[in-house]
Amino acid sequence: MPTPPYYAVIFTSLRSPADPEGYAVTAERMVELAQQQPGYLGIESARGDDGLGITVSYWSSLEAIRGWREHAEHRLAQKNGRNKWYARFSLRIARVERAWDFEAKAD
Amino acid sequence: MPTPPYYAVIFTSLRSPADPEGYAVTAERMVELAQQQPGYLGIESARGDDGLGITVSYWSSLEAIRGWREHAEHRLAQKNGRNKWYARFSLRIARVERAWDFEAKAD
Repeated sequence: MPTPPYYAVIFTSLRSPADPEGYAVTAERMVELAQQQPGYLGIESARGDDGLGITVSYWSSLEAIRGWREHAEHRLAQKNGRNKWYARFSLRIARVERAWDFEAKAD
Repeated sequence: MPTPPYYAVIFTSLRSPADPEGYAVTAERMVELAQQQPGYLGIESARGDDGLGITVSYWSSLEAIRGWREHAEHRLAQKNGRNKWYARFSLRIARVERAWDFEAKAD
């Protein structure tokens, strides 16, 4: 990851019970596709047992985020997301101002 | 949540195998304590089966984040986090510029 500033898209979601197989295939494909977009920096994703999922993707610029948002295959996934896969979601675009990393020393 | 701008603290972590009970108690206490801090807006957290956890907390200002960061009980938790609970983590402070919410219509 570069030194800030860069951008984060914070996507928090609650899945509906519908179509787990279709969702899983598309979720995996979207990660693969995002990684190929201009300005992509990274992605982190977690879904807990309560069904709440958080995916944060990182981008070099707002233009890069816009490009990904308007990608045809991604737009179809977004439509399916609203129509069947998600009970609710929130999407936030944020400018990362500072970042730190920690790694434990090996014993 | 208010209309942007506001701030997000994005904390992504990988747990070490150490002290799961102590970690769980402290993690719960920190959420409770964060909610009592000035400028706290909200928190979302998920940890997947691969051990990757993402917690995003939301704050009204950088001053509010600084206050929480320097809270004595939180500082002790941070120390234990570095010394035993986390194999690695990343911490990012970001300014939320835009936000959208979606909720599926009831059938």
